[in-house]
Amino acid sequence: MPVNLSPPVASDLLPIKGVLLGTAEAHIKKPNRKDLLLIKLNSQATVAGVFTKNKFCAAPVIIAQEHLATHTGVCALIINTGNANAGTGESGMITARATCAEVAALLNCKANQVLPFSTGVIMEPLPLAKLVAGLPDCVADLREDNWLNAATAIMTTDLVAKAVSRKITIGAKTITITGIAKGSGMIHPNMATMLGYIATDASVAQGMLQQMVTTACNASFNCITVDGDTSTNDALMLIATGASHAGKIVDTHSAGFQQLQAAITEVAIYLAQAIVRDGEGATKFITVNVTAGKNEAECKQIAYAIARSPLIKTAFFASDPNLGRILAAIGYAGVDDFDVKKIKVYLDNVLVAEHGGRALSYQETDGQGVMQQSDITVRVELNRGAAVATVWTCDFSYDYVKINASYRS
Amino acid sequence: MPVNLSPPVASDLLPIKGVLLGTAEAHIKKPNRKDLLLIKLNSQATVAGVFTKNKFCAAPVIIAQEHLATHTGVCALIINTGNANAGTGESGMITARATCAEVAALLNCKANQVLPFSTGVIMEPLPLAKLVAGLPDCVADLREDNWLNAATAIMTTDLVAKAVSRKITIGAKTITITGIAKGSGMIHPNMATMLGYIATDASVAQGMLQQMVTTACNASFNCITVDGDTSTNDALMLIATGASHAGKIVDTHSAGFQQLQAAITEVAIYLAQAIVRDGEGATKFITVNVTAGKNEAECKQIAYAIARSPLIKTAFFASDPNLGRILAAIGYAGVDDFDVKKIKVYLDNVLVAEHGGRALSYQETDGQGVMQQSDITVRVELNRGAAVATVWTCDFSYDYVKINASYRS
Repeated sequence: MPVNLSPPVASDLLPIKGVLLGTAEAHIKKPNRKDLLLIKLNSQATVAGVFTKNKFCAAPVIIAQEHLATHTGVCALIINTGNANAGTGESGMITARATCAEVAALLNCKANQVLPFSTGVIMEPLPLAKLVAGLPDCVADLREDNWLNAATAIMTTDLVAKAVSRKITIGAKTITITGIAKGSGMIHPNMATMLGYIATDASVAQGMLQQMVTTACNASFNCITVDGDTSTNDALMLIATGASHAGKIVDTHSAGFQQLQAAITEVAIYLAQAIVRDGEGATKFITVNVTAGKNEAECKQIAYAIARSPLIKTAFFASDPNLGRILAAIGYAGVDDFDVKKIKVYLDNVLVAEHGGRALSYQETDGQGVMQQSDITVRVELNRGAAVATVWTCDFSYDYVKINASYRS
Repeated sequence: MPVNLSPPVASDLLPIKGVLLGTAEAHIKKPNRKDLLLIKLNSQATVAGVFTKNKFCAAPVIIAQEHLATHTGVCALIINTGNANAGTGESGMITARATCAEVAALLNCKANQVLPFSTGVIMEPLPLAKLVAGLPDCVADLREDNWLNAATAIMTTDLVAKAVSRKITIGAKTITITGIAKGSGMIHPNMATMLGYIATDASVAQGMLQQMVTTACNASFNCITVDGDTSTNDALMLIATGASHAGKIVDTHSAGFQQLQAAITEVAIYLAQAIVRDGEGATKFITVNVTAGKNEAECKQIAYAIARSPLIKTAFFASDPNLGRILAAIGYAGVDDFDVKKIKVYLDNVLVAEHGGRALSYQETDGQGVMQQSDITVRVELNRGAAVATVWTCDFSYDYVKINASYRS
């Protein structure tokens, strides 16, 4: 069960002028489920993205970046689930290129104007024929109000679809933003195992858009971990169609840039947190907040040590305030020059540790009370500077093992 | 069930002249189990150790190092289980010092000639009165042939005691080595959550002994991981009593040094592997061997990325050759300049991946066959140098979650 995360409602998801979405059942891994999504863009649209840093990145990740770099404009994005087309060597590259060519033929554009994405099992050949056979259904299904189906079609082990919309006003114009994402396991920056697509009808110059998606990703998908595994297929794409006819954003210092950046970051954070709330086997959503550090890097290092510790995550699953494990994680995080006596550790607002040990005021019943909640914040004050970092994670349950021990079957 | 690890037999464990061991039931955490071990040394014994690098290291870890640094000789080691005396601040230091003083009074030596060790739950006060009340029983029990009881007394979540002996001949003299260790969860260098004590009747100068224990530790306890959590309490101690009356080892280039080093490293590797074989919830023992790297550091980095990935460990638990997850881990290990096309991945002798993807010769049934074994080797050939590294780990099962979700109850 996702932690405090309701499934999106179709009517809450706002169409973005210039973006058409179509899905199909291509039977890539399993029958009777949507597993193919085609996103068709208007001709003025600009697109920017952030991709996994995994060295064994998937063929579509390589091709998508190659095609973006040609700067010939993006006509469509094609996304399949059920197979990652990763660890597939040269034949995987051929399959990904062929996918783009087939989409281009159907939409009457060039192959390098199509960006491919895949998610699913690694190191198995992508069944190209099945994917291609599903494309005409996608084309026939293309509509503006199809975001919920789109979010559903890209799910793998996700229990609920992840999608959200926002409306903002820039100058006198209304700007709409809608985003979808998938991801549940193999979640760790850079980046989480996820695919994310955010579209807006604002008009944004290519360079600005790249900066916007990088900033949004750093504040969202690069702050989450489920299991510490960085996927081969991650990508977050930001699309700006310009169909609102608002003035084009060409300057990072403009009010329009700032407002749109804030709204897009907010959408990205919602989607990133939704991935953690729907983390494989999750029963709790944990915010790890490290404050008063010397720099952001050390805050993040300590936050991640806590967020990925199986011992801490199983204690959260058990609602057991075995909080010494948090001190142990702070101690082995790899930050070597801090004074343990200055550190304070809080569970929500309960002071747990100070002066190098358990706080005198700490009562087990207070810790127990917080541990029973489904949303919990661990706060670590380093008390040696002004930097902060936040990481979101979930607990570690029997179901995580169950899901991942049986993922392929 | 420990993986291919038989409990030690008392008669296989050889006494070390100069080392007396006594245990007691001090009821520190639970009744009716040995939880206190006193090791008394002869006056000529030299002692050296390696300790956890966790910044939140336990009070006894700090005191043991302090006492060793006084170079006044070590009279005794006192080890309790059931409570780690870690994350206990200033009062933990007072308790650890008081423990040493009580032991010193009973054995008629100085407090700084006693080294304290604790293992168990973190951030709870050590019940000093119970520990002290158990000391006379330890003293009354002191004997040379008490190694199996000693190994049993230091267990926490361990399912079997870990102990081994070796005999070697240096010159004309027979030298005996016996070692014990505990550890099962919170296992990751530097170091693993473990305590290890290895004693020999060889005569070794202090400086040589320190070098020997560091070398042995790097080749053994620093090559294992169960859950990626580095404990607050780890220590590996090496004791040389000199009671064999063999010539003193004072030169690292001597044949005696080399022979003893090899035997002690062998004992340390046995004990380190025993900890992994008895890893919490383990059903499989996995050797990760990275070869042909540029340097040892990159080999180890990739080996650890594989060895600590929950996704890979759950796949081993399921005997599912979902081997793309291994490629993903190699790709995110943080080594950035290798060519994925040059890498070969083997499961035992089955070639799984090459040329950036699945090997053409690979048959799922072959992978399946290896995955069903209880001892499995993953070998990664980087094919860009001559360096190698090996890491030992276990799989990740329901029982890991169960054990750690209920550890304190």
